[in-house]
Amino acid sequence: MTIMFEVLKQTGKARRGRLTLPHGVVETPVFMPIATKGAVKTLSSQDMEKLGSQIILSNTYHLLLRPGFAGMKKLGGLHHFMNWQKPILTDSGGYQVFSLSKMNKTKEEGVVFQSHIDGARIELTPESSIETQLAIGSDIMMQFDDVAAGGADRERHEAAMERSLRWAKRCKEAHLENSKFQIPISKMEVGISKSENLNLKNNELPSLSPNPFPFQSNLFGIIQGGTHEDLRERSLKGLNDIGFDGYAIGGLSVGEPRAEAYRIVEMLADKMPADKPRYFMGGGMPEEIVHYVRNGVDMFDCVLPTRNARHGTLFVWNADPDKWNPIEGEENSDFYEQMHITNEKFAFDESPIDPFCDCETCKTVSKAYLRHLFQVGEILALRLATIHNVRFYIRMMERIRECL
Amino acid sequence: MTIMFEVLKQTGKARRGRLTLPHGVVETPVFMPIATKGAVKTLSSQDMEKLGSQIILSNTYHLLLRPGFAGMKKLGGLHHFMNWQKPILTDSGGYQVFSLSKMNKTKEEGVVFQSHIDGARIELTPESSIETQLAIGSDIMMQFDDVAAGGADRERHEAAMERSLRWAKRCKEAHLENSKFQIPISKMEVGISKSENLNLKNNELPSLSPNPFPFQSNLFGIIQGGTHEDLRERSLKGLNDIGFDGYAIGGLSVGEPRAEAYRIVEMLADKMPADKPRYFMGGGMPEEIVHYVRNGVDMFDCVLPTRNARHGTLFVWNADPDKWNPIEGEENSDFYEQMHITNEKFAFDESPIDPFCDCETCKTVSKAYLRHLFQVGEILALRLATIHNVRFYIRMMERIRECL
Repeated sequence: MTIMFEVLKQTGKARRGRLTLPHGVVETPVFMPIATKGAVKTLSSQDMEKLGSQIILSNTYHLLLRPGFAGMKKLGGLHHFMNWQKPILTDSGGYQVFSLSKMNKTKEEGVVFQSHIDGARIELTPESSIETQLAIGSDIMMQFDDVAAGGADRERHEAAMERSLRWAKRCKEAHLENSKFQIPISKMEVGISKSENLNLKNNELPSLSPNPFPFQSNLFGIIQGGTHEDLRERSLKGLNDIGFDGYAIGGLSVGEPRAEAYRIVEMLADKMPADKPRYFMGGGMPEEIVHYVRNGVDMFDCVLPTRNARHGTLFVWNADPDKWNPIEGEENSDFYEQMHITNEKFAFDESPIDPFCDCETCKTVSKAYLRHLFQVGEILALRLATIHNVRFYIRMMERIRECL
Repeated sequence: MTIMFEVLKQTGKARRGRLTLPHGVVETPVFMPIATKGAVKTLSSQDMEKLGSQIILSNTYHLLLRPGFAGMKKLGGLHHFMNWQKPILTDSGGYQVFSLSKMNKTKEEGVVFQSHIDGARIELTPESSIETQLAIGSDIMMQFDDVAAGGADRERHEAAMERSLRWAKRCKEAHLENSKFQIPISKMEVGISKSENLNLKNNELPSLSPNPFPFQSNLFGIIQGGTHEDLRERSLKGLNDIGFDGYAIGGLSVGEPRAEAYRIVEMLADKMPADKPRYFMGGGMPEEIVHYVRNGVDMFDCVLPTRNARHGTLFVWNADPDKWNPIEGEENSDFYEQMHITNEKFAFDESPIDPFCDCETCKTVSKAYLRHLFQVGEILALRLATIHNVRFYIRMMERIRECL
């Protein structure tokens, strides 16, 4: 077993690192586009590869509903299903259970909820979350956690944090127990063809076989505690005692003032293990990512580039990113702006969306044409905008790494 | 001026031909995918090129609403706007005025209608249809015609056919008058950059400049008359007397029994000028296209491949198309079938959509994955299905040409 995470270089608190995962190497700091239901909205796996994505994030909750746990196993895992051969990180399902499902009930054992699709009763526990993530074939799994709502009081935050710690321990045990028996996560690497491994003609589940890989899947703990520093510290300490392959900061980017999130991340990053990857969950704007990188965070995911794209809001460079130094000097958000492409002023603007961008959209269409596609409701608009925004975030991380 | 249409070879009544147009050469028989509002739904111009499309069809009515006549001129034509350098055929706007607009009123002069988008009052006449198609920069323009509804009686068909003939004459005159003054249809070819040619900083329309091209745009007449053979014959004779660059069969594929359409096409194709391209408008299923080719038709368009794709219905080969001879032997529809990809039976089918297809979809995803994308409502599903269906139709025409 080789090193899973190496810090290659440190500039101030910022780290240039490398994650070695079952499906390949990820250079950090890294941004992970979100393939919610097994696809980054509007894009194919081949598109993601062209855009330079090293790793994608997918949502256990959505995949648990469709194609389902048994379905995912039968299909040989998400890599094979979506024809994506690079690493995948999966969340635990916890967050969506609370935000999307109907009638969820949380007990110490886990959460019982009704599918928002067909009302089916599903139970998600730390153990079943891990088993589902193993069926997906994740390179990095997240612990199942109890998530306090954005405006929750200290008492609720404390209870959620404490329960998340107990669940973290159960996740760790389930992961240890299961990781010696899992579906081969990349059949290509070991030369086992689909048909040899899975009998797809009948409805039997594939038998589990010992994992032949030198790299195991990885399990990350999630630090909770809202904006309460003492709760965050207790959460971190508890997770540390259990021991994880990486540590995530959860429960931020949920509506709190930016300064509050900055305060918690700055406080935490100094105390998080230096030899493990640090992952800020679910945020944020480009300048926030730069800020967190400068404070020692290594991994990011966010719906903003894809969601904003579908609403016609594009991230564009204000100057050549190759001359931008995100690590030195004062922090600011001058390096980019948000362009609302549906604005009337672009109706006859034949220049590219972003002259500094190297994506397919910027190389092939004008602002006027993209605006027209949005105006007339063409689906192509969503794709072209998404391609650009995802490329913006990935290019931003490339530039951050160059400057580290 | 070189030859615009050549019949290279004839097999029975079927013709292997070549159209030489301002934006390039089109090998016939040809299928033209439909870029209704300036994009083939879900696909970019680059996608269309990869799929082997030689020519696309766009709709004057939709472009007249957005970006509008002045807008289209200011944007330098549709080729430049959508970054598509191959030929474009445009319809006249007539059909959509009747099917989509609110409160249309037809007079001898033309049609006054309200935009279905914003209620704006717009007048479309034979002259303004031609001017709009010139602003679009079409390689092939269609005459403006009066379209009788599918179930109309003989009297209405006769009146619509007679009016269409009068309008055909006005279109021909407008085309002759305007074709010496038009926006250069491909700036790339004459090395005039956009900025030299069009002042985009203010709101002035570009001045019209003499057309420097060796190939003029082409104008096709449309044969009307419903399923009445005598009306069709009178229509054809009238158009012949005016003289067009090609002749289209309009007003079929509107719900009539297939045998009726076959009867009209067989009757007409024998009488249409042999030295001009013949275009069957708006149809149809693969076996219908084969039938029309075998009866001497050269050009086709149809919404079926793109529309069916978006509903999860895929055209798939039943056997290797390279071994299929569409020209010899009995006609049948055994060479393909329609696959409803959302069917439960494909949930775990990891085979490609169509093992005989060379498209990106068939090369990269399984039936199970494409079904999943439809099930969970991912936009990517529409794109992947469209890529396949468009490729099916284009491949079909490639094979037809190989066998001629």
